[in-house]
Amino acid sequence: MAVKGIKTKDKHIHGLAKLVGGQRAILYHKEDLVAYDCDGFTIHKHLPRAVVFPKNTEEVAKCVKYCATHNLPFLARGAGTGLSGGAVPLHNEVIISLVRMKNLISVDLENRRAVVEPGFVNLKLTNSIADRGYYYAPDPSSQYCCTIGGNVAENAGGAHCLKYGVTTNHILGLEVVLPDGEIIELGQNGIPDAPGYDLLGLMTGSEGTLGIVTKITVRILKNPEAKKTVLAYFDNVTDGSQAVSDIISAGIVPAALEMMDKTAIEGVEAAAFPVGHPKDIAAVLLIEVDGIAVGIDEQITQILDVCTARNVREVRAAKNEEERARWWANRKTGFGAMGAISPDYLVQDGVIPRSRLPEVLERIEQISEETGLRIANIFHAGDGNLHPLVLFDARIPGQTEKAIEAGSACLQACADVGGTITGEHGVGIEKREEMRFVFKDEEIIAQTNIREVFNPGNLLNAGKLFPTPGRCGEVKKEMKEALLAQ
Amino acid sequence: MAVKGIKTKDKHIHGLAKLVGGQRAILYHKEDLVAYDCDGFTIHKHLPRAVVFPKNTEEVAKCVKYCATHNLPFLARGAGTGLSGGAVPLHNEVIISLVRMKNLISVDLENRRAVVEPGFVNLKLTNSIADRGYYYAPDPSSQYCCTIGGNVAENAGGAHCLKYGVTTNHILGLEVVLPDGEIIELGQNGIPDAPGYDLLGLMTGSEGTLGIVTKITVRILKNPEAKKTVLAYFDNVTDGSQAVSDIISAGIVPAALEMMDKTAIEGVEAAAFPVGHPKDIAAVLLIEVDGIAVGIDEQITQILDVCTARNVREVRAAKNEEERARWWANRKTGFGAMGAISPDYLVQDGVIPRSRLPEVLERIEQISEETGLRIANIFHAGDGNLHPLVLFDARIPGQTEKAIEAGSACLQACADVGGTITGEHGVGIEKREEMRFVFKDEEIIAQTNIREVFNPGNLLNAGKLFPTPGRCGEVKKEMKEALLAQ
Repeated sequence: MAVKGIKTKDKHIHGLAKLVGGQRAILYHKEDLVAYDCDGFTIHKHLPRAVVFPKNTEEVAKCVKYCATHNLPFLARGAGTGLSGGAVPLHNEVIISLVRMKNLISVDLENRRAVVEPGFVNLKLTNSIADRGYYYAPDPSSQYCCTIGGNVAENAGGAHCLKYGVTTNHILGLEVVLPDGEIIELGQNGIPDAPGYDLLGLMTGSEGTLGIVTKITVRILKNPEAKKTVLAYFDNVTDGSQAVSDIISAGIVPAALEMMDKTAIEGVEAAAFPVGHPKDIAAVLLIEVDGIAVGIDEQITQILDVCTARNVREVRAAKNEEERARWWANRKTGFGAMGAISPDYLVQDGVIPRSRLPEVLERIEQISEETGLRIANIFHAGDGNLHPLVLFDARIPGQTEKAIEAGSACLQACADVGGTITGEHGVGIEKREEMRFVFKDEEIIAQTNIREVFNPGNLLNAGKLFPTPGRCGEVKKEMKEALLAQ
Repeated sequence: MAVKGIKTKDKHIHGLAKLVGGQRAILYHKEDLVAYDCDGFTIHKHLPRAVVFPKNTEEVAKCVKYCATHNLPFLARGAGTGLSGGAVPLHNEVIISLVRMKNLISVDLENRRAVVEPGFVNLKLTNSIADRGYYYAPDPSSQYCCTIGGNVAENAGGAHCLKYGVTTNHILGLEVVLPDGEIIELGQNGIPDAPGYDLLGLMTGSEGTLGIVTKITVRILKNPEAKKTVLAYFDNVTDGSQAVSDIISAGIVPAALEMMDKTAIEGVEAAAFPVGHPKDIAAVLLIEVDGIAVGIDEQITQILDVCTARNVREVRAAKNEEERARWWANRKTGFGAMGAISPDYLVQDGVIPRSRLPEVLERIEQISEETGLRIANIFHAGDGNLHPLVLFDARIPGQTEKAIEAGSACLQACADVGGTITGEHGVGIEKREEMRFVFKDEEIIAQTNIREVFNPGNLLNAGKLFPTPGRCGEVKKEMKEALLAQ
């Protein structure tokens, strides 16, 4: 039966519209769909079949059941800020957008938890509880617009994850719509060692391939009594990265320990939030400590002693909250700032053991020389999470391919020293092949087998996270079958 | 072919003996097997078919492959200190004992990690690195004899897990022999947000039903600069538990926050490590804070202010490390100490939201009155992990059954307030039926489906963790099938 106002012969658009309350909660015209052809990873673009906007769990479950019944590929989307293509509709999927489910359901200060809908914006949670002295710890740089549902899917990190852990360490419970439309609850009220298998941990970071999260219970933390923030400038990158390693070795756990190199500094100083970093400096560390007020100054002194031993040129302490906020804006808008010095850039995301920082940064410089592309480094140094930013110009034939190669070579360098290929941005489409840098065939099969348990038809977000069948080279028979089932 | 020195016609004993280097690494005589008929949960006793003692991963894999090929049920065993029956051979299993694999393989202070074999005793790790200023955080009360492999299987907790997290928060990587004998590696060098599904988290706490852990990479921590330990005595349990809730609400996270009630105090004072607790007191809190030296005294002052507001009768501070160690011995041997005041006791292990502590303790007292059995409470109050100890006399007909009922009623009380049925001891055999207090059928099926991925024949440790088929009442068809496959 046709739905009022829907102007297409595609019966499934009518069928889906009915489930979400009519034509106002569905997009299906090509000109509307273009906005959904990619996420923050813009290299692959594909139009979805439609975008539906359910307003609650029941409507999500109905849409999922409809897709499952009619064999329509589908996937969930939050704010679309993901950097690895997790929300890109590779197979003309029906996109289930969760932006209308954006309520803060409850806050329980006594037990330190809040319940949110998946479309609730990350930073809004902290803003909602700040006046009562609480905050939500995971702080990806996109926190002003990314949603907590997307954070769960990608197991998002952030600058303060060094001390406080990534998203999975703050998720106490999930309501999930499974790919057959069934609704289940995971996690038992945040109990750290609940009985049964850890399905909560399994779902978190599964990049939208196991289910659609419709309600999230998160841990909230009491604001630290005090914070101190300093900038430390170094004349060479090796001294800076040795200082990082030394700070951690000294037993200090800063709340954040960020690093930018010369090219990155050039970018952030040319963009919206310059802070007056010296122009001729090789590296800057942004260091923040927090905790009870009485010990803070001693920690800063200890850190500065380490920096001095590593030939720090200059140190600045934030004079007030305003200056601190500006330093963080300078850092957190760093990726976008590359636009000020390069027509295009590609962000990579690798992880290494902290102690290998100097040699891997050298290798990245080598890759830059080999490819002739500048590579800026802005990264979470404290936990060894690198973000090489490959600068290129897509208008020059061949540069895009060269940039992708350079990015992949950086990931290989991370894997070579016992690191891995993503620290917080996920695998998505972008790093499917690089999964082979860190997983054996058997280990990938174990994972696709688990996907099979939740997502047997693989209608939900197919073609993400695992290597693609056409490019998997010499693999075992069962591996091929598992991959071909994607 | 017969193996030299093996005196049985059971060909599988010969077959297995060959794989582990002959008759010295296998037990098969009934009088030897009796020591393996149960673990720390002594209510169910069953003899294994044999116990093999492989010395390395390859031998474990060979034994597993042998069992898989010949359709022999098998399970892994560490020190056998588990409290829920996880290592009990319900089906005449071949026990693969990991006690010979007890090496500390490596320590990497710079990257804060150590690699151990599964049979390595928990406390030995801290003892091995203490002189260099490091320790391993998870500290179950049995840490002087339990093994880290068993800790991984049960996701063991401990007194200091309030601040430092349970075992899963300290496991960076695992080598696992899967139930078909294949060897895989899980975890990527301890990277918090590694790509792919979180199989490391899934394996940890899976109670020996998904694979056998043969190598473990753990996080090690730098010793805190300072520690302070106090005892706070209360004239009633409600004041004591309100103080617990208030301490956490005040934003303080003690390293440990333990509670014992009057009956428990009677027990520990009658046993091996009395410390002179007042005889007429209703509850004692053992509170420890740690961290940088400069803030410690302020934290203790804050805690004591909270206790004062809740009518604390008396406070004692540990004068030195010796006194502190004695207080901890008094607490950590608390379960066994019940033997001093009761012929038998049954330990339970439930979890509740901290704020519900007073009402649940009241309900436990009610259960004690209803059953006529004394119940002592020794527990990790800070994280709401209760350990009701039901005191009984097995020689009196009917008392064992009554004690089991009382224990189950305590767990129901925990589940009723949004808690759960185990905080650190696991489900094993003991709490299979109580899984229904916290999981819907669908949620149990999702888990048995995952077991099926790893352990398709269910030869490995069958009959543990999930409800038993004969007693599952009115369940769905597929649920029955899933359970009957156990």
